[in-house]
Amino acid sequence: MTGLFVVFEGGDGSGKTTQVGLLCDWLAGQGRAFLRTYEPGDSVAGQQIRSIVLSPSTGDLAPKAEALLYAADKAHHLSAVVRPALERGEVVVCDRYVDSMLAYQGGGRDLDPTELEQLARWATDDLRPDLTVLLDGEPSELVGGMADKDRIEAAGDSFHLAARDRFRALAARDPEHYLVLAARDERDAIAAAVRERVATLLV
Amino acid sequence: MTGLFVVFEGGDGSGKTTQVGLLCDWLAGQGRAFLRTYEPGDSVAGQQIRSIVLSPSTGDLAPKAEALLYAADKAHHLSAVVRPALERGEVVVCDRYVDSMLAYQGGGRDLDPTELEQLARWATDDLRPDLTVLLDGEPSELVGGMADKDRIEAAGDSFHLAARDRFRALAARDPEHYLVLAARDERDAIAAAVRERVATLLV
Repeated sequence: MTGLFVVFEGGDGSGKTTQVGLLCDWLAGQGRAFLRTYEPGDSVAGQQIRSIVLSPSTGDLAPKAEALLYAADKAHHLSAVVRPALERGEVVVCDRYVDSMLAYQGGGRDLDPTELEQLARWATDDLRPDLTVLLDGEPSELVGGMADKDRIEAAGDSFHLAARDRFRALAARDPEHYLVLAARDERDAIAAAVRERVATLLV
Repeated sequence: MTGLFVVFEGGDGSGKTTQVGLLCDWLAGQGRAFLRTYEPGDSVAGQQIRSIVLSPSTGDLAPKAEALLYAADKAHHLSAVVRPALERGEVVVCDRYVDSMLAYQGGGRDLDPTELEQLARWATDDLRPDLTVLLDGEPSELVGGMADKDRIEAAGDSFHLAARDRFRALAARDPEHYLVLAARDERDAIAAAVRERVATLLV
């Protein structure tokens, strides 16, 4: 595969979507072919899966059922969206990927983290990003700024603190493939740091 | 758990649904509390999952995505339907369970059977039936009798032959918990053999 796989991770309200947009604007300005995408849900099947997880009519979902649905979304998104774009040589810029699943289903809820990671790696054929940008911040500062909270966002401080710890632990495990930035920093300073790092990876 | 978990497995057209009904009629006549159910799809979430797998609008589903969706259905069905009934002390009579997933996703398609079984066991907390009745038969004789074939039923002889082999191998691995009957036998003779075996398990 000749493309480049760049993922943005971080808590809700950390500015991922803004930074994904700024990176894509820059790639477009450079004349680079790129694909902007996100998980979960950026496919027809993914939208349906997402609606099962989020719909009140589903009732209580067992933690394993929820994790398996997210894993199914990832397996489908990888094979239908991400891998074809990488094979075309594009830069794939993805808002959330495996780390989000590990942080939210593993860091915050009662599933064995090792089993969960095996599941996520299996679902994605262990395809890892060339670069993961982690926008790291204190959950209370990030979520506090958001008006409407969905079920996950409203899950409470300890949940979000555990997720943040898990994001940071994943980055610490493989520093070569991570860029950890403070989500509170200036929007444009973050964008510049991301561009600088991505530029070193583009051939 | 004080209930009894009885599963019927076998190829399409093997008579599972008929035999599930006959066993439930007998349990009702005995005054036994029972729950008749099936996989995949016997829950609100399960119906939605099933529609993703079967809907043409989904497009091609990667084999892993399909297996993960079936596993999610199983995890949810176990926690929302099967386990609560067993905890109430009921006889749960289920049309298809883990073996069908292993036979159709593992025996017939290109997924590693060991990985697939780990996935299915994880999804179901490795809860195994007290008894699995396998209605075994030559696929061409079973499917040949069916009028409308869906996508799976129409998948071709080698697919169904591989699935049959996998069903039989699973039964051979744990004979104490299986009752293998010829699907071609008389309907009432099969029902009598099932009743006889189930009666020994009822306390």
